[in-house]
Amino acid sequence: MADIPESRVLAISSHLLGLDVAALNTVQFSNHSGYRQLKGFKTTGEQITELYDGLKMNGNDDFGMLLTGYVPGAEGVEAAGRVAVDLRERRKGEKGGFFWLLDPIMGDEGQLYVGEDVVPVYKSLLALADLIVPNQFEAELLSGVKVDSVESLSRAIEELHRVYKVPHIIITSVTLGDSDKKMKCAGSTKTTTGASRKFIVDVPIVDGFFSGTGDLFAALTLARFRDEAGKAGLLETASWLSPDEVGPLDLPLAKTTEKVLGSMGLVLLKTKEVRDGKMNLLRDLVPDEELDERARRIRLAKASELRLVQCQKELLDPGVIVRATKFE
Amino acid sequence: MADIPESRVLAISSHLLGLDVAALNTVQFSNHSGYRQLKGFKTTGEQITELYDGLKMNGNDDFGMLLTGYVPGAEGVEAAGRVAVDLRERRKGEKGGFFWLLDPIMGDEGQLYVGEDVVPVYKSLLALADLIVPNQFEAELLSGVKVDSVESLSRAIEELHRVYKVPHIIITSVTLGDSDKKMKCAGSTKTTTGASRKFIVDVPIVDGFFSGTGDLFAALTLARFRDEAGKAGLLETASWLSPDEVGPLDLPLAKTTEKVLGSMGLVLLKTKEVRDGKMNLLRDLVPDEELDERARRIRLAKASELRLVQCQKELLDPGVIVRATKFE
Repeated sequence: MADIPESRVLAISSHLLGLDVAALNTVQFSNHSGYRQLKGFKTTGEQITELYDGLKMNGNDDFGMLLTGYVPGAEGVEAAGRVAVDLRERRKGEKGGFFWLLDPIMGDEGQLYVGEDVVPVYKSLLALADLIVPNQFEAELLSGVKVDSVESLSRAIEELHRVYKVPHIIITSVTLGDSDKKMKCAGSTKTTTGASRKFIVDVPIVDGFFSGTGDLFAALTLARFRDEAGKAGLLETASWLSPDEVGPLDLPLAKTTEKVLGSMGLVLLKTKEVRDGKMNLLRDLVPDEELDERARRIRLAKASELRLVQCQKELLDPGVIVRATKFE
Repeated sequence: MADIPESRVLAISSHLLGLDVAALNTVQFSNHSGYRQLKGFKTTGEQITELYDGLKMNGNDDFGMLLTGYVPGAEGVEAAGRVAVDLRERRKGEKGGFFWLLDPIMGDEGQLYVGEDVVPVYKSLLALADLIVPNQFEAELLSGVKVDSVESLSRAIEELHRVYKVPHIIITSVTLGDSDKKMKCAGSTKTTTGASRKFIVDVPIVDGFFSGTGDLFAALTLARFRDEAGKAGLLETASWLSPDEVGPLDLPLAKTTEKVLGSMGLVLLKTKEVRDGKMNLLRDLVPDEELDERARRIRLAKASELRLVQCQKELLDPGVIVRATKFE
């Protein structure tokens, strides 16, 4: 990623990174939700549409990529979907001219954190996306498959390919019950016949709770995947799909996942190092026992903020790389 | 600027760059005003206050620096001023613990582009700022001195030091009438007795109209000045004020201005290069004559977007540097 590609990205999201990006912010909050209390305001569906109309009005809708992340409410998600349809229409005829990474943010660990009416909207949009990056819970919601084993994880991926025809899937942060405490990340790029090509990666785990890792994953994945797809000569192929003879571990998507998880592992290590140093200092000043639960939570959340600005090198070049393996 | 300083910055602005920055966006627009038509919405004074309250609520108000840029409306500017007062109060007792760069954005080339009620609000806030970066028109509004010669430029700077006690001043983009077509940038850091130490720099000029240069100047200046003040050992001195014996050209503010203008010159050169290439291609496809005025303006504005993402190196290390000279 030494060269900055000319292709422009529109990010309808509450977070983003890299490339020449136009950000359409879907919220303006004082802090992330890890603090459990926040102030600020959400961008409405109407406002998303208005901003997009403004981009169009000035011919600034020539985006080669779209990243959609957290969008509050069903109307907002619908508006983001209309933007995607419009952007794809604009570039139709250019094979690979438009690529949508859809992060269907709905919830985590069995809990929805959007309205129930958001789920069917995402389901209706999935067929328009090129790459989706649900977490385990979101993959379950979308596929209808309860993921609790390698077999069911495999089935969920196949259902997502089959039902929604999504070309590329990465299911992030999968845990498969007590027997295997490691967190995994699994993905697949479909073949022309719709068959899966599945790979799985152990996610480097760093103890603690870090907010924003999902947004970081999505942003890095888009930047990295464009790079890997470019190296594979796929940027003028619809959805940047690899030829059928490419095996799971040679997929640009697998290489992308390896590098992204490598970078994220380093960011989390750096974040943990800073957090532990800060917490030691703070606890020397005021021990945890002298604080109420809220104050303890706040100081931990603050010490655990991702050290992104400090990790530019690790983001651009992870150096260490985690390895994908294939699975059936 | 190899090391990322630990000090955090709050930017109440519509643009920003570098450091570990929390952005409080004062507008969300589809594009900059260079297109002459835009859609989107402004952050109200009430919303600025609400977001700041959210930061405080979670102990995230430990900012060492504040940058305020374009703030729409008198109520918004008042709200930004209250944030500044509060942040300074929080760090009082720590000499140099808080630094406010105030960009009093009101207008340009003789034209106000904010309401008239904004002007007195800025006047009331100037005494609280550490560094102000008005353009020529704004410096005239604030100082009451019409700037049309080196003498009146000097007088304007002295008035700003005298009336508002502002420690550091940079007047950006000064043109001194037909006799001297070069654009200049002039600055001063006051002494303990309130005397000025004035320097002036020729601004590298690149033909064309580029939006966002003021925001870029302010953001680079804050990052660079912290770096230069740090090298001079001033970060624990109130307002990062240099000792009286330091001459104009040895001021960290002068060195800052040299480097910032060096970086900006390179960004503009790169931008011009890309613009000219794009415009040649576009004019081959559709000559200017075949477009109406609006379409011509839009395609030129789009081709002239600052190539910031492509100029990371030039921003971090300008290499070439423009030189300041002193003046009376």
